[in-house]
Amino acid sequence: MDKYMHRKAEARLHVLNPDGTPASGKQIHVDQTSHQFLFGCGAFDSVALMKTEDPGIKEFLQERMDKWLKLFNYGTLPFYWGRYEPEEGKTAYPETMAAARWLQEKGVRVKGHPLCWHTACANWLMKYDNAEILRRQLERIRRDVSLYKGVVDMWDVINEVVIMPVFDRYDNAITRICKDLGRIRLVKEVFAAAKETNPDAVLLINDFNTSVSYEILLEGLLEADVPISAIGIQSHQHQGYWGLEKLNNVLERFSRFGLPIHFTENTLVSGDIMPAHIVDLNDWQVDSWPSTPEGEERQAREISEMYSVLFEHPLVEAITTWDFNDGCWLKAPSGFVTMENKEKPSYYALQKLIHGEWETHDVLTADADGYISFTGFKGGYRVTDGQAAASFELNGPVDGTVTLAR
Amino acid sequence: MDKYMHRKAEARLHVLNPDGTPASGKQIHVDQTSHQFLFGCGAFDSVALMKTEDPGIKEFLQERMDKWLKLFNYGTLPFYWGRYEPEEGKTAYPETMAAARWLQEKGVRVKGHPLCWHTACANWLMKYDNAEILRRQLERIRRDVSLYKGVVDMWDVINEVVIMPVFDRYDNAITRICKDLGRIRLVKEVFAAAKETNPDAVLLINDFNTSVSYEILLEGLLEADVPISAIGIQSHQHQGYWGLEKLNNVLERFSRFGLPIHFTENTLVSGDIMPAHIVDLNDWQVDSWPSTPEGEERQAREISEMYSVLFEHPLVEAITTWDFNDGCWLKAPSGFVTMENKEKPSYYALQKLIHGEWETHDVLTADADGYISFTGFKGGYRVTDGQAAASFELNGPVDGTVTLAR
Repeated sequence: MDKYMHRKAEARLHVLNPDGTPASGKQIHVDQTSHQFLFGCGAFDSVALMKTEDPGIKEFLQERMDKWLKLFNYGTLPFYWGRYEPEEGKTAYPETMAAARWLQEKGVRVKGHPLCWHTACANWLMKYDNAEILRRQLERIRRDVSLYKGVVDMWDVINEVVIMPVFDRYDNAITRICKDLGRIRLVKEVFAAAKETNPDAVLLINDFNTSVSYEILLEGLLEADVPISAIGIQSHQHQGYWGLEKLNNVLERFSRFGLPIHFTENTLVSGDIMPAHIVDLNDWQVDSWPSTPEGEERQAREISEMYSVLFEHPLVEAITTWDFNDGCWLKAPSGFVTMENKEKPSYYALQKLIHGEWETHDVLTADADGYISFTGFKGGYRVTDGQAAASFELNGPVDGTVTLAR
Repeated sequence: MDKYMHRKAEARLHVLNPDGTPASGKQIHVDQTSHQFLFGCGAFDSVALMKTEDPGIKEFLQERMDKWLKLFNYGTLPFYWGRYEPEEGKTAYPETMAAARWLQEKGVRVKGHPLCWHTACANWLMKYDNAEILRRQLERIRRDVSLYKGVVDMWDVINEVVIMPVFDRYDNAITRICKDLGRIRLVKEVFAAAKETNPDAVLLINDFNTSVSYEILLEGLLEADVPISAIGIQSHQHQGYWGLEKLNNVLERFSRFGLPIHFTENTLVSGDIMPAHIVDLNDWQVDSWPSTPEGEERQAREISEMYSVLFEHPLVEAITTWDFNDGCWLKAPSGFVTMENKEKPSYYALQKLIHGEWETHDVLTADADGYISFTGFKGGYRVTDGQAAASFELNGPVDGTVTLAR
């Protein structure tokens, strides 16, 4: 049995020449050009690329994003309230929208992250009382979901709710209102605001907590009819690869809800592993965190294994690696490329899967009536006889006609 | 400020002699005879007492229950389905009802424990499919809540829901249906069955899990309008006293819901402490677990401290120590009396609080018009001039008249 059967669909195509006659007996090249599955990565540098006026930086970021685009069809853009709107009313809309459009033009699906979170929240909110903080939070959601509609139609609506009301590292506006309303009420409110503004958007809840607490939270939210489109699971593995046992256990437990699962923030490092006693990863502050040759081989192996398990699981729809390049969060060697944009073994390992093993390329001979049939990974396709070409989408079984054009 | 102010009420009484004249200038003894607060303990031996036909055992259990009754006004009776109804249709109704009535006659409030739990469940249920198991579970609840109405009006409706669907020590009917329905649906169903059968009953959910998981579960249940009367918190401390920090933290976190809190299953041992690495307390199987003199002093100190903190907390309504005597669950030295019914220091320590420090006894002189005024701990009272007497309830401010009678 093909373990990727659910990722594939059957096509039966009547291939017509540009003049409308059947391409009977012709050799037809069938090439997958895009994936239905969301292979994602943090795309924060696209915002920097849009903003910079320094030609050197521009060139460097352009090179980085070129390598990014060769791997991925799905990117996460930053909407941390405290950074997106450092002063009330002054937002990073221009460069963020420019980046989102730029990615969209390149066929990349864009997700905004996050609309509500206690960390990296706007400090200026704290001058308001709780009713006003909530009002502004919901207004912010309506504003941004509306402004980006058609460009960003996928949102991490709320982040890390399990610890939200008990988060005690520092005072912040969101913990205050979450304590006040309770988790379920707050999640209900923020999802309602996002949903009413963009009813077709994909709306995620996202958490690093994969314990029974998150399961129970999801139960409560679904029972309260919160319109969650997909369950977001973070998997920052700075303290070492989860391994198959934990990975399968998490998948099994979160599959129970029957909802799509997105691995939203994956990290596997190519250097030393952070000690297990660190509870809040942010507490691990180092001067440098070098990548090592053995670490890079290990990272490539772990990425291949983990992505394969996730791609095989029928409910998983998306996998996002958090850092494209080393030296981002916690200075970790967590990227597919180095800080200097040099591809690491993990880059090629993932490329071999996404654009190798999991991509369909075939040469078929059309039958006497001009028909070809094949089973391919879901996504966009190009068919050509070498001179004229046509494209079509294979997101489910297709029985149709394509007319080649020059 | 009086830290027990919320446990007290003010009384202004017009005391009348048997002939209806004011008891002007008389010395009036005011004695609290019962507590509004529920000081509880497991009362399983009262069932054994009702059942035994052996005169020696009867005498021994009678002596034990006499000591029990000197301390407590609230008892937990066993309704574990597998033991209450070992064969379908053959229940322990006669002895359990006899015990409940016997306790009630002695002024003891009775709670049934539990109506739904994956442990100690009836094995015969497993021959049915999940729909039938659920139907029988709900029918069992309706049957027992109805049969005992007026005698047992307080129930641990469901026990240990946090781990219920992931409990994997052995297959059982309740884990099956909880996995199937999800936690919230099952809790909803069992509470609905209990509530519709006895709308005035006090209905508890009960758990040993005091983590954020239980908090989130409660949020989900309350959001789903489950009629929880009080939050039950187990505190089996075989692995050592929680201490003030954890105790206050638990109280703070579970106070957020504004519901009454019951400490339903408290254990503090007077011997060696179970090693911390044991996760499921049931895994600690020893031949004997002796009480030690130092352990008994420690137990008495810890009980005094813990009960004082709980009695001070405005939302706590009940504290139940699980074992009255040593040698019950896990053979632990967890009782107020030894296996031979000898009072341990913890017995006297708790007596000093419940029937000493926290009980009002006073001698007042009625004023010229026959009035006395005092502030006392809430509960039942007897007033007497030494010859005639009357009783009244002080469960809130009282401004009334009592007529002494011989």
